[in-house]
Amino acid sequence: MKLYSYFRSSAAYRVRIALNLKGLSYDYAPIHLLRDGGEQLKPDYRALSPDGIVPTLIDGDNVINQSLAIIEYLEETHPEPALLPGTPTDRAFIRSIALQVACEIHPLNNTRVLQYLTNEVKLDDAAKNAWYARWVESGLDALERRLVSDPRVGVLCFGDTPTLADLCLVPQVFNARRFKVDVSRYPTIERVADHAATLDAFFRAAPAQQPDAE
Amino acid sequence: MKLYSYFRSSAAYRVRIALNLKGLSYDYAPIHLLRDGGEQLKPDYRALSPDGIVPTLIDGDNVINQSLAIIEYLEETHPEPALLPGTPTDRAFIRSIALQVACEIHPLNNTRVLQYLTNEVKLDDAAKNAWYARWVESGLDALERRLVSDPRVGVLCFGDTPTLADLCLVPQVFNARRFKVDVSRYPTIERVADHAATLDAFFRAAPAQQPDAE
Repeated sequence: MKLYSYFRSSAAYRVRIALNLKGLSYDYAPIHLLRDGGEQLKPDYRALSPDGIVPTLIDGDNVINQSLAIIEYLEETHPEPALLPGTPTDRAFIRSIALQVACEIHPLNNTRVLQYLTNEVKLDDAAKNAWYARWVESGLDALERRLVSDPRVGVLCFGDTPTLADLCLVPQVFNARRFKVDVSRYPTIERVADHAATLDAFFRAAPAQQPDAE
Repeated sequence: MKLYSYFRSSAAYRVRIALNLKGLSYDYAPIHLLRDGGEQLKPDYRALSPDGIVPTLIDGDNVINQSLAIIEYLEETHPEPALLPGTPTDRAFIRSIALQVACEIHPLNNTRVLQYLTNEVKLDDAAKNAWYARWVESGLDALERRLVSDPRVGVLCFGDTPTLADLCLVPQVFNARRFKVDVSRYPTIERVADHAATLDAFFRAAPAQQPDAE
């Protein structure tokens, strides 16, 4: 397998954790999102990812876009250890946490959106930071209220087992801290994410451990 | 089952199509996203949906947030007809289309984001429309390039069978047209979405057919 990735991409980070948890080795193909106007926008890469975003997974002849589609594919083709364990109700809980991050928080704060706000809308740094904080803080606040009262939450989002929920939460917390969000305001999220980040599969997937880290 | 919905919500529209395709009856609980500052922000509803967004599905004691988590749950608990048919590779294709809509296009253009741009960023209508067009047009353009060359595409995104991909595409096309995007620039998308919209399960899920339609 081959993963097109950028060390700091939250979406690529999710997939790197999944590959590590499943014990799958892969070639790391770096795509620099800022250099030369963005390597993800070059024709060679857009032939694989028409959106011009990372990650993309190559598995034999298969080209798979979208981090959550990649992880569901890995789950179906390499079921152990399960990243979506439990009953259908449990999996709905796990997927809904993952999607709350992937649909409500991350899309509003990724590189291309922040670039548009700077270059086209001409937001100054204060207004851009307010935008970032608006979506990350309200998203983490809502997630905290779900997690703090749910009996399924353990040392990780779902008991003690790493799941798709943790795969999305850890990169989002990393990203929030990079933008100076005070994650200690969300104590359940902070506890879970900081515990998960110590696990080997998560640690090896972290931005600083990637070959293209700066 | 009970579905908290708003007639014009794209995410609720996806779930309504899924429920119809699976032949599941449900109580329709309208949540008006604009009235009284937004009924989705009232404490009663936020106890079910901490994010204050629709849809939420109630199935017995289960409260499920996030449209794609709801649809995966329905798929697991009511497998026929399959909304994720085929091989793992096929399902990755279907999920990646759905996620391309749900993660790259829709989050940037939903009600709360457009309200923030108007009320906080103070964008005028021209700048807000440019924002809307930027993400919908680039997203549909990327999706068109994927679909036009993929042999799996038939009269629908995946052959002739309604899948999760169509469930996401039809509401996005409806939404784009409401904001005056010229969908004819994306002929494969237009052909697929317009065909899907004629199917009974899709027609009955359309905004105009809902009890809270205006």
